[in-house]
Amino acid sequence: MKLFYAVHTCALASHIALEESGADYTTVRIDFKSNDQRKPDYLAINPKGRVPALVTGRGVLTETPAILAYVAQSFPDARLAPHDDPLAFAQVQAFNSYLCSTVHVAHAHRMRGYRWADDPAAIAEMQRMVPQTVGECFSLIEREMLAGPWVMGDTYTICDPYLFTLAQWLEGDGVDIAQFPKLADHMQRMSERPGVKKVLAQQLG
Amino acid sequence: MKLFYAVHTCALASHIALEESGADYTTVRIDFKSNDQRKPDYLAINPKGRVPALVTGRGVLTETPAILAYVAQSFPDARLAPHDDPLAFAQVQAFNSYLCSTVHVAHAHRMRGYRWADDPAAIAEMQRMVPQTVGECFSLIEREMLAGPWVMGDTYTICDPYLFTLAQWLEGDGVDIAQFPKLADHMQRMSERPGVKKVLAQQLG
Repeated sequence: MKLFYAVHTCALASHIALEESGADYTTVRIDFKSNDQRKPDYLAINPKGRVPALVTGRGVLTETPAILAYVAQSFPDARLAPHDDPLAFAQVQAFNSYLCSTVHVAHAHRMRGYRWADDPAAIAEMQRMVPQTVGECFSLIEREMLAGPWVMGDTYTICDPYLFTLAQWLEGDGVDIAQFPKLADHMQRMSERPGVKKVLAQQLG
Repeated sequence: MKLFYAVHTCALASHIALEESGADYTTVRIDFKSNDQRKPDYLAINPKGRVPALVTGRGVLTETPAILAYVAQSFPDARLAPHDDPLAFAQVQAFNSYLCSTVHVAHAHRMRGYRWADDPAAIAEMQRMVPQTVGECFSLIEREMLAGPWVMGDTYTICDPYLFTLAQWLEGDGVDIAQFPKLADHMQRMSERPGVKKVLAQQLG
């Protein structure tokens, strides 16, 4: 399998899951500054012009929650999701769906407001709201969703690298992580995992 | 199981899936005009203050992609998802993830711009862009994703009620469905299904 990623994007979650799954995989870095994601070569792989994209032997898979679930289901020995319990698996999917449809979207209004408005004043107004909207998302996560020490409780799942990935953006979004002690503990635990260290060294080193 | 829904929302997709799964379920209608979704009784069920929410015997499940996958996995005889093929299942999840994180979000900037901006001028600017952003999403779906006659090709899946649900909003979003012949055919096929007729009659009748 081959993962297309860019630095500082949500592709980090899929990269960590691949690394921790024991999968045989390679990576290709896309440079957003050069607008690689909009060039014909990449659009032939992912017509959405986004990352991540996972090239499998049977086609290309996109969207972080789908890639995470696919990696977990394809490498069950890594125990990255509760495969034998549809409700527990659905709770994992629900958490990841909230991250992609609400938390990532709230964050995206800081850097990518042009997706939803042309007027610079409107884009600036969206940016102004980001600390509040992202902060409210993480308040809800801290209060209602993050069981601790891992998202689903005692068992590590594909929710954890995804939460870790989005929490990377809090400082840039103007949200103080110190108000979220369970999340701060989670980030510390994640950063100590060998697979996470290896992936961060590759992406940022 | 008990599904909390509101009319004209994405909860329609879960309602159709439940109906077509053969599940034993009841529904509770939440009235957004009365702001029921922000009242303590409902927040105790779903702290996000959104619909859908599915009350199961073992807890509450939220987020449309997760509910759809749960219904499909819990009632495998209804054959609403490719359960035995992780990649095919992931493609279903990828499609539904795109609907929740990109298509629904593009649409939401028309009615719910206050989520991302306070300034009325910014909210109006977001609304102005909606025909373009939603139109681009459905162009991509028509061109790259909707295999036809169903989303995944010859086999009906949980992608279909979700696409049907979001396509309900095209007219209000100022997007002409006539430019998307595969989608128009899909909407017609969906509207002829007995389960869809029954659910629409209950929600809108």
